Amino acid sequence: MAFDTPFGSPSETRTAIMRATYEALIEHGYENLTIQRIGDEFPKSKSLIYRHYDGKDEVLVALLEFLLDHFESQMPQPTTENADDCLRNVLDFVLASDLDAERAELTKVMVELRGQSPHNRVFREYFSDNDRTFRRGFAEIVERGVEEGVYRPVDPEVVAEFVLTVVSGSTVRRATTDDTVDVIAVRRELDAYLDARVLREQE
Amino acid sequence: MAFDTPFGSPSETRTAIMRATYEALIEHGYENLTIQRIGDEFPKSKSLIYRHYDGKDEVLVALLEFLLDHFESQMPQPTTENADDCLRNVLDFVLASDLDAERAELTKVMVELRGQSPHNRVFREYFSDNDRTFRRGFAEIVERGVEEGVYRPVDPEVVAEFVLTVVSGSTVRRATTDDTVDVIAVRRELDAYLDARVLREQE
Repeated sequence: MAFDTPFGSPSETRTAIMRATYEALIEHGYENLTIQRIGDEFPKSKSLIYRHYDGKDEVLVALLEFLLDHFESQMPQPTTENADDCLRNVLDFVLASDLDAERAELTKVMVELRGQSPHNRVFREYFSDNDRTFRRGFAEIVERGVEEGVYRPVDPEVVAEFVLTVVSGSTVRRATTDDTVDVIAVRRELDAYLDARVLREQE
Repeated sequence: MAFDTPFGSPSETRTAIMRATYEALIEHGYENLTIQRIGDEFPKSKSLIYRHYDGKDEVLVALLEFLLDHFESQMPQPTTENADDCLRNVLDFVLASDLDAERAELTKVMVELRGQSPHNRVFREYFSDNDRTFRRGFAEIVERGVEEGVYRPVDPEVVAEFVLTVVSGSTVRRATTDDTVDVIAVRRELDAYLDARVLREQE
């Protein structure tokens, strides 16, 4: 493989299936993905895949959960720093302007599977959960900022909804267009919004 | 059909193929769509579809262009009103909080096909074009606002990129999650951004 993957040493069967699924998905896309093709990337017996999962969508949801855990493990953790620094650090990560090959592939995989949601209840439930988790994460940071007095008494849910919408929009646009999305500009405008609307004015 | 469609009286073959494709796509989703299934929704001979289009993706790109024309024909046109009123009117349309059944289906269709882009060059080119058209549209309004003096001397391309990102994010999120996306809150925060960052302060 020409790029790093979110998979460590695939010693366990489950991890090995996840890696095979990820590689087959990148190579064939969702539409042309089959358990057969996952099996082609899998060094052990294909029957192990069937023993763990009922079908293609079930393996993919397991992959999404695996990838999300990996993504979250890389995210800056809220520390003792103030809530505003914490929020901007998280945004540095989720709105990174240069994605390495691994992040770029991961983003495409997430966007492609999200695109199945209108016709696929399993994926729709997964992405509903996923959005809920991220919105909650943003809202908790904003809530802390309000308590700390670094933020105005804004509604954390509203700010979180807006921030998540900007993050989703730039993620989807850069995975689905040939043009370079100007993520640096998007981030600067989002910062301007936070400065004007959320941050308490400095005395 | 339980809802209106963007198709008038399907007197012409081309319009009839578009309608059949749209209905088949809504019913089966992209993955399970075939020319055969489009043919099942088509009152005339299936051979007419093959005469007009080389395959499934070509029919779908024609459908996307057809739908985009329809969508654009419904958008508020820039009139003699000032640029800021014009921008907010366009946002009223693209970020409408209550989508009727037609718009909701159309949004799902667009998001599902956009999700093919990472693995499908034809769709990726289409959506790159599509984003370029919308960004240009937003930038032209902002540019006019700067000239009129209603806006500060902002970079119209930067503002347009941000606005398009918010619109894309809310479109994708509401087509792919079960939860209600709080589009009213998103719009209010976008307005707050425009007021603070773009609108010239009133004397």
